[in-house]
Amino acid sequence: MVFKRINAICSLILYQRRDYYNKFRHHALFIGAAVPFFTQSDSNDTSNFMASPITPMEQLQSNPTDMKTRMELMIMKVQAEFCKALEKEENSSHKFLVDKWQRKEGGGGITCILQDGKVLEKAGVNISVVSGHLPPAAVSQMRSRGKQLSEGQLPFFAAGISAVIHPRNPHVPTIHFNYRYFEVQDGTNVQWWFGGGTDLTPYYLNNDDAIHFHKTLKEACDRHSNTYYPKFKKWCDNYFDIPHRGERRGVGGIFFDDLDEPNQHKVFGFVTSCANAVIPSYMPLVAKHKDEKYSEKERQWQLLRRGRYVEFNLVYDRGTKFGLQTPGARYESIMMSLPLEARWEYMHEPDQDSREYKLLEVLRTPKDWV
Amino acid sequence: MVFKRINAICSLILYQRRDYYNKFRHHALFIGAAVPFFTQSDSNDTSNFMASPITPMEQLQSNPTDMKTRMELMIMKVQAEFCKALEKEENSSHKFLVDKWQRKEGGGGITCILQDGKVLEKAGVNISVVSGHLPPAAVSQMRSRGKQLSEGQLPFFAAGISAVIHPRNPHVPTIHFNYRYFEVQDGTNVQWWFGGGTDLTPYYLNNDDAIHFHKTLKEACDRHSNTYYPKFKKWCDNYFDIPHRGERRGVGGIFFDDLDEPNQHKVFGFVTSCANAVIPSYMPLVAKHKDEKYSEKERQWQLLRRGRYVEFNLVYDRGTKFGLQTPGARYESIMMSLPLEARWEYMHEPDQDSREYKLLEVLRTPKDWV
Repeated sequence: MVFKRINAICSLILYQRRDYYNKFRHHALFIGAAVPFFTQSDSNDTSNFMASPITPMEQLQSNPTDMKTRMELMIMKVQAEFCKALEKEENSSHKFLVDKWQRKEGGGGITCILQDGKVLEKAGVNISVVSGHLPPAAVSQMRSRGKQLSEGQLPFFAAGISAVIHPRNPHVPTIHFNYRYFEVQDGTNVQWWFGGGTDLTPYYLNNDDAIHFHKTLKEACDRHSNTYYPKFKKWCDNYFDIPHRGERRGVGGIFFDDLDEPNQHKVFGFVTSCANAVIPSYMPLVAKHKDEKYSEKERQWQLLRRGRYVEFNLVYDRGTKFGLQTPGARYESIMMSLPLEARWEYMHEPDQDSREYKLLEVLRTPKDWV
Repeated sequence: MVFKRINAICSLILYQRRDYYNKFRHHALFIGAAVPFFTQSDSNDTSNFMASPITPMEQLQSNPTDMKTRMELMIMKVQAEFCKALEKEENSSHKFLVDKWQRKEGGGGITCILQDGKVLEKAGVNISVVSGHLPPAAVSQMRSRGKQLSEGQLPFFAAGISAVIHPRNPHVPTIHFNYRYFEVQDGTNVQWWFGGGTDLTPYYLNNDDAIHFHKTLKEACDRHSNTYYPKFKKWCDNYFDIPHRGERRGVGGIFFDDLDEPNQHKVFGFVTSCANAVIPSYMPLVAKHKDEKYSEKERQWQLLRRGRYVEFNLVYDRGTKFGLQTPGARYESIMMSLPLEARWEYMHEPDQDSREYKLLEVLRTPKDWV
C-alpha cells in the first residue's frame, strides 16, 4: 500500500538550505576529489565518483561491512557509471553539473543534472544519504502499514539513488529508476528494508525495446528469486497508473518495497543487481535510436506524453506529493524528475490506426513482455 | 478552509462519458440554436449563447425567478461575452470550439476551447450545470467545514463558470476566474451559497496592469460592500500559494467561498458584478500588450512560469485534486486549465537586477495594488 516512502521521507528531510550549497558548474572539480580506499574486491573505486561521498571518509573506512557504508558506496558507484554512460552517448560539450548539498540535521545529497543537451534533453541522477530523527507523523505512517515501531521520534538512516532521463529524440524512451535502503532504530532494535524499481516510458512503442528492457530486468531478478520478476512487474504496472486517464505512465518494469527477506546481505545483492541492470537495460536503446530522424508531429506527441508524465508525478507519485507537502523540502531535487518541456492539448486523441494509438493501447492494457 | 469545493464537486460528478459527447468542431452549429425567451430587462439574450442552455428551455421559462435559472443564464451570458471578446482580440481564423457534454445523472456542461491561436495560446471557458445526489463523502466534507446537513446522500444543484486564458505573448498575463452557485437539499430545507474569484498571473510585472486589474475588481466589490475587496484580496493571496517554491502563482485578485449573506438576491448581484468585471479588468491588458515584441528569452521565462502554474494546479488546487481523485471525472474539463506548453529547468534563478527577478519579488511578497 505504501510505496516510495523512503524516497518521500528523504525528501521530507532534505531541507533546502541554499547557504549550504556547494554548486559546481564543472564536475571536473570533483573528479579525483574522492580517493580510493577499498580493496579492489569491493568494486568501489571511489576516485570515479561524481563527488566525494556524503559520509566522511574516515567513517566509511572504519565501517566497511556496515550496510550503510555498502549502500552509500553502491549508489555512488551506480550514479557515476550511469552519468558517464549517458555522457558518452551525449557526446557533446554538455556534461553533468554536480550539486553537492548538505542537510542541517545530518547527511546530504549529490544531484547530477544534464540539461538541454544534444541527446539528453533533461537527465537527473540524484543520490541522498541522510540521517536524523523521523518525525512522529512518519513513524505513525510506518506503523499504519505494519512496521513494529514505538511511537515518537526515532533515529533513522536512508540512502537512495533516483534518476529520470528525458532524451530529446522521441524514439528514445524515458527511463526512471530508484533504489533505496532504510534503517530505523527503535531502542536497541534496528529495522531495515530496501525498496526500488526501474521503469520505461516510450513515446513510440518498439516491441524489441520493451522486450529487451524487461528481459534484462527479469534476468537481474531471476538471479536471486524466480518469484521476484512476476511479482514486481505487476507491482510496477499497478503503481505507475494515471487513473483519470485510464493509462499507465509507460510500459513498466519492476517496482518493490519493504524487502527485508531472506537477509540483509541477500537483499542488498538483489538491489545491487537491479541497479547494475539499469545500464544494460537502457543504454542500448539510447544508442539505437538517438540519431533516428523524427518529425515535428512526433516531437509534439512526445511533449504531450511528457504532460502525462508530469500529471503522474505531481498528482499521484507518493514520494513527490509527500515531499512537496513538507515545508522546506529540497524541491529542486524532487522537481528534477519533470521534463524540460511538456504540452497539454484539449481532447487529444490519436487516430486509431496510428503509431501513437498503438502506444496508447499498451498503456491502457499492460502486457507481458517476456 | 475549504475552497473551490463546488468546482470540485462539479468535477466529481461530471463523469466523462464519451458516448454522450456531442462534439462540435464549429461553434456556428450552435449559434442561433438558442432562442431568446426572457424579456430585455433580464439582459439575457440567449440567442448569443455559445450553445443552447444545459437545462431544457421549458424548465427555464417556467422558473424565471429561481436562482438556478438566473445563475445558469448569467454564466452562459458571461461565457458568450468573454469568448466573443477574446475572439475579437484573437482576430484570426482561430475560433472557440464548443463541446457540449451531458452527464448521466443530471445536467452537463459547455466547454469552449481556443487552442494554438495567434494571440491566444490556450483559452478555455467552461460552464457546468449539474444536479443529482451528493455522495456521502462530499456531504461529510461539507459537514466538517460547518454546514448543517444530515448524513447520507443529499440532492444538490451546482452551476458554475470557470476559465483560464494563456496568451502567447509573454507580456500579456494569464487570467483565471471561476464563479459558482450551490444548492443542497436537506429534507425540506435548501441550503445555498456562492463562491468564486478572479486572479491574474503576469510573466513580466507591469504595475499599471496590476493596478488596473485590482482597481476594476475593487470597484465591482465596493458596489456591494466595502469589506469585500480587502477580505477577498487577502483570501486570494493565501489561496494561490505554492508553498514549496515560497511563491504565489501570480499577483492575485479576489477569492471567496461560502457566501450566503445578506440574502440570495444580493449575493447573486455581487457575483454577477464580479463576473461582469472580468472583461473590463482583463481585455484592455490583452489589447495593450498582444502585439509587443518579445525575445526567445522572454518566451522561455513565460514557459518556466507556466511550469509553476502547472505545479499549483496539479499539486495544490483543491478542485483539481479532488476532481482527479474521482473515478470517471471529466478530466478534459479539469485539465483545460493547463497551458499548451510548460517548462522546468533545474535551479533556475533570474539575476537580481532582472525584470524576471522583479516579478519574483512580488510573487514572494504579495503587495497591495489599490
